[in-house]
Amino acid sequence: MEPGSRGAAPGGVSVSAVLPAGGSGERLGGATPKQFCAVQGRPLVSYAVRAMERISWISDIIVVVSPENIETMKTIIEKYGHKRVTVVEGGITRHRSIFNGLKVFAENEFSSPLLQKPEVVIIHDAVRPFVEEDIISKVVMAAKEHGAAGAIRPLVSTVIASAADGCLDHSLERARYRASEMPQAFLFDIIYEAYQQCTDYDLDYGTECLHLALKYCKTNAKLVEGTADLWKVTYKRDLYAAESIIKDNLSQQVCVITNVKETLAQGGFLLLESLKSQIKVEAISVSLSKNNSCLQNVISGQCYNFVCVNDKSCALQETQELVDMLERSNIPLLYPVVLISVHLDISNNSFSIGMEDLNMIKKFARETKKKNILVYGLLIQYK
Amino acid sequence: MEPGSRGAAPGGVSVSAVLPAGGSGERLGGATPKQFCAVQGRPLVSYAVRAMERISWISDIIVVVSPENIETMKTIIEKYGHKRVTVVEGGITRHRSIFNGLKVFAENEFSSPLLQKPEVVIIHDAVRPFVEEDIISKVVMAAKEHGAAGAIRPLVSTVIASAADGCLDHSLERARYRASEMPQAFLFDIIYEAYQQCTDYDLDYGTECLHLALKYCKTNAKLVEGTADLWKVTYKRDLYAAESIIKDNLSQQVCVITNVKETLAQGGFLLLESLKSQIKVEAISVSLSKNNSCLQNVISGQCYNFVCVNDKSCALQETQELVDMLERSNIPLLYPVVLISVHLDISNNSFSIGMEDLNMIKKFARETKKKNILVYGLLIQYK
Repeated sequence: MEPGSRGAAPGGVSVSAVLPAGGSGERLGGATPKQFCAVQGRPLVSYAVRAMERISWISDIIVVVSPENIETMKTIIEKYGHKRVTVVEGGITRHRSIFNGLKVFAENEFSSPLLQKPEVVIIHDAVRPFVEEDIISKVVMAAKEHGAAGAIRPLVSTVIASAADGCLDHSLERARYRASEMPQAFLFDIIYEAYQQCTDYDLDYGTECLHLALKYCKTNAKLVEGTADLWKVTYKRDLYAAESIIKDNLSQQVCVITNVKETLAQGGFLLLESLKSQIKVEAISVSLSKNNSCLQNVISGQCYNFVCVNDKSCALQETQELVDMLERSNIPLLYPVVLISVHLDISNNSFSIGMEDLNMIKKFARETKKKNILVYGLLIQYK
Repeated sequence: MEPGSRGAAPGGVSVSAVLPAGGSGERLGGATPKQFCAVQGRPLVSYAVRAMERISWISDIIVVVSPENIETMKTIIEKYGHKRVTVVEGGITRHRSIFNGLKVFAENEFSSPLLQKPEVVIIHDAVRPFVEEDIISKVVMAAKEHGAAGAIRPLVSTVIASAADGCLDHSLERARYRASEMPQAFLFDIIYEAYQQCTDYDLDYGTECLHLALKYCKTNAKLVEGTADLWKVTYKRDLYAAESIIKDNLSQQVCVITNVKETLAQGGFLLLESLKSQIKVEAISVSLSKNNSCLQNVISGQCYNFVCVNDKSCALQETQELVDMLERSNIPLLYPVVLISVHLDISNNSFSIGMEDLNMIKKFARETKKKNILVYGLLIQYK
């Protein structure tokens, strides 16, 4: 894919991303490192990659994994059809892994030919699956202006310092401190310089990239308040939470699409009301037409269930338009999309659909299923 | 219940507990304060109360709720049959609520007559449902020795201080700091003195009890490393996690109980092997007898599913013994217990059970169901 074909980054800078995914997941208490644990059947790292991938202005996505997981990672990339991803061998610590990831833009040892050096590099964890474009944009913009930036969150617990005897030394005033989260972003030259300058002690015992930028490049990072969903999957309970969040996202919204004919609009409205009362979903109604900005908003609002009401017995053209729009949005890469094509029969004729139409719908559904779009047909007689 | 009838506290001290449950749950993003959110059909606060209640050496459990939730809390206590609980009206901040909770042992304004002042008071959050006796004991013992003690956990994220301009000021070295969690415990006189001495500013803006004990009573709290399950339910994802943990606890273990007769032991073993291969449960085999310490260990190891193998067509006596033991353990207060009584028929007679036996089992099951113990009968012919 040509970089020029992608959308513009905030501030017009070139942007790439490094995802350290080399952790051993000791705190999770399982044999599988957490980034490879399946959540709803897909490894956690795949969610984080997708979150970057669907942002068109991110050029390269570097995933850094420990040597024994390189093949696993390559299999994941192939299986889930990830694009623009380069797998790099990590070091024995987080900082060493990130440094390796940065080297693919600067040193021939890690990539030949070199990948094109971005102006701004995002660093994000493979175990933070729910990062949205909004916070990534903010962090990238802030990095462009300040040289470094990172997402922060309020502290959940009070932080205390312990004395050598295992007793409380002092507690920190919670309001003055923040938890440093991801994503972070840096002018590439600054963070790369910081990694080149820093000591082995930093590389082995440090974890905080913002700290390196401050210590070695005198760059004060801009702190950007993030959302609660940026949290890091650390314990087994976090995997449970991630799974529930994904399920929740899938089932919360239905968009009912009707075209402009009045009889259909009324039928669609009744269907919407009936959905509302019976399955407790949010429901919205828009008309389908090409480049419909209202529908674009629905999609970007994370609604991936569609009921498309029409008066043709086999409205493949309209359904195809919606499928195309969904594909362009990259949504089906991340979430299964459910699309129910409802034929609202308002004639007085008896209830029927031809075998030919039925076969066409079936064939269409088989094709779209490969793209993670599940199409169903429904015939409703309405008088 | 007489305090004397309960088990001995660690170190022989008298112990009571205060559970602040006055929070508004703003961070959860729902209308219901998180401590009243249902997890598997039961409000979160009820889990925390149960966690205290099943420890026999805790005398009084003070739950502090905001004025508008007093009736709700009383309804919960009645519905779930909580014992030894006193509901107290909270203040407008966490510290003020805890102070009110402590006053029931010291000031007539909050309780008449006064509850008996404990030597050590535990402070625990209503939104930390999974606290085990082990950590509570450790914290109580440490409080008896040092005057104050609290559970701590490693930090998940790096903690940073922000400057006035919203930029990074400095990051803390993660290894030197800990997250202060609950439970905490104090010599009653120390924490009560600290609350009496502290300023309105402390009461309105502080949250950390250990800090008050240090500041006003020069008592350095002993810090006790806690387990991951002590975490505080803060966000919606934490409710999801709590629900999954409860489900997980329920389904992970089955204990197969056989008596000592050789023929039965063999049948029980085969049943155990078959369970292992088919439903992927942990399985252990012990013999049932009164005051069986092995079985006590099973129960304290959070195994609440039992398959009891016997050779009588209606082994109510054995089942009753197990039910009694479970009741004494207080486990069914917290978790539904499943008990399958298997009649292993090793005779060569034809397969049968009398209507009278059947009715007895049914009646027995109806009675135990009220106690949250679900009894099922199963007849297996084995030759």
